[in-house]
Amino acid sequence: MSRVQLLFAGADEYNDIWVKAAASLPDLDLVLYRPGLDPSRFRYLMLWRPVPGLLPAMPNLKAVFSFGAGVERHLANPEIPAHVPIVRMVEPGLTQGMADYVLWQVLRHHRRFWELEEAAREGRWAPHWYPAAWDRKVGILGLGNLGQAAARQLLSFDFQIRGWSQSRKDLPGIASFAGTAELPAFLKDLEILVCLLPLTPQTAGILNAGLFAQLAPGAALINAGRGGHLVEADLIPALNSGQLAAASLDVFATEPLPGDHPFWAHPRIFVTPHNASDTDPGTGLGEVWRQIVAFEGGRPLENVVERARGY
Amino acid sequence: MSRVQLLFAGADEYNDIWVKAAASLPDLDLVLYRPGLDPSRFRYLMLWRPVPGLLPAMPNLKAVFSFGAGVERHLANPEIPAHVPIVRMVEPGLTQGMADYVLWQVLRHHRRFWELEEAAREGRWAPHWYPAAWDRKVGILGLGNLGQAAARQLLSFDFQIRGWSQSRKDLPGIASFAGTAELPAFLKDLEILVCLLPLTPQTAGILNAGLFAQLAPGAALINAGRGGHLVEADLIPALNSGQLAAASLDVFATEPLPGDHPFWAHPRIFVTPHNASDTDPGTGLGEVWRQIVAFEGGRPLENVVERARGY
Repeated sequence: MSRVQLLFAGADEYNDIWVKAAASLPDLDLVLYRPGLDPSRFRYLMLWRPVPGLLPAMPNLKAVFSFGAGVERHLANPEIPAHVPIVRMVEPGLTQGMADYVLWQVLRHHRRFWELEEAAREGRWAPHWYPAAWDRKVGILGLGNLGQAAARQLLSFDFQIRGWSQSRKDLPGIASFAGTAELPAFLKDLEILVCLLPLTPQTAGILNAGLFAQLAPGAALINAGRGGHLVEADLIPALNSGQLAAASLDVFATEPLPGDHPFWAHPRIFVTPHNASDTDPGTGLGEVWRQIVAFEGGRPLENVVERARGY
Repeated sequence: MSRVQLLFAGADEYNDIWVKAAASLPDLDLVLYRPGLDPSRFRYLMLWRPVPGLLPAMPNLKAVFSFGAGVERHLANPEIPAHVPIVRMVEPGLTQGMADYVLWQVLRHHRRFWELEEAAREGRWAPHWYPAAWDRKVGILGLGNLGQAAARQLLSFDFQIRGWSQSRKDLPGIASFAGTAELPAFLKDLEILVCLLPLTPQTAGILNAGLFAQLAPGAALINAGRGGHLVEADLIPALNSGQLAAASLDVFATEPLPGDHPFWAHPRIFVTPHNASDTDPGTGLGEVWRQIVAFEGGRPLENVVERARGY
């Protein structure tokens, strides 16, 4: 019993890539949802954007597999029944992609490569000094699968790493801070702050003027969590005052970021289009298949969202 | 006998930083060279740019410590007597700095972050697809201290890594190619090529049209070796034909890169001002001190240049 039927919905512009990846998984039948298709026989759904009316037509549904790591969209979807588990996406492609993005941005800020890029655009040869990585304090908000992977990779570059999460973690080489009470100690003197938190009522708006003021002067901010983590109105004033030197943002309150949004034009804000990391079709579908086979064999699903805590 | 006198010459614009670092090494007396100073009593010299007339006035010289990893400038300096060993700089700050630079540039090309940056400058939200790191073939020309460090760091990102060097290396996870005969096999299908070679008569001009044609179409080039490795006239045609997608260059035939050089303005050439990695004053002086103490204790110097091979 390893043949699996999976309904795939809500990622229209990337369907081709997923169909192609599924072709190399002979025990997985990937069926693309389209209006008019009867979804009632499917037990498993892989879902990106909500598809209104889809869930109520799936009485045999056993689990919803989230297309990505963030699940706040699914938790806000009233059509997902309370008894149906929602599974966060945890797969090596997504994890490595986020580590790539975080390291690229941390190195940009650590080495102030953006200053070299500014000079290059003006044809100026202006080498500069930089501190050693082992003197640089980098903090990660969120120490789940993605945060831990980024932290491990940063450690291999010899940065000083702190992490902050809801519960304390025991991770070699990483100073772990937990809960609201320890947030000030975590933030103190940080030169580069990376946000990889889940978006919950507790974490919404956590990146605000009050937090920026607790970092080292001239710190850098990297937000690859969710747009809702940042109080957008607080960012440009913090940059203009020098409290922050620069910011890299992959996520925004409104996506796509509107063309007239001031973040595009600010010379110290590096916008990427919610492209920090994508689920890899091959390894992502392989993971969903693995979980379904295990579940059908009587084992529990892994990475199931705890709805009360919001991730 | 651990107190050491070191004459320091040729790095005028950074002297302050080095004097400051030396202050925390109580057993090292760092003396800055200045015109008029009698250098004859010094046994050890740390040298960046040549200082004409300095070496002939140092009859007691036991060793020249190169300020950096590249030594072709010292080998071309006729004032350094043949019997005086030249020591390449190998220290953790320089090594980590180069790994930072290489990883930053490889990630830029792997993820085509430069496309996202171009779009951002135009206010365009344009996420794109990218292959998994484990499907990406990255090659490193030069597997000395810096090349090996970059290779190890790249491996931790799960890239497919090949290395090419004069002699074969046995490095876990890295496919090793050696000598001219194996250069074509090394280059075949490479998507990202990093040059960290020493500059010797054998390696000068190795980055040329004939080499580019052996890479995967649309490959990326990263040169952090020496400007003399690249046939500059071959680069822009390779970019304009699409043979190469983009290039990151830290070193140039003429440095500083002249203001009217076409590399500055080309949208697919990323110029950095020979700033990929700098010797860290603290750990760099610590290494020189350690070597001198060992040498005075009768042990051989490490990382001594073999003049016949040129590095």
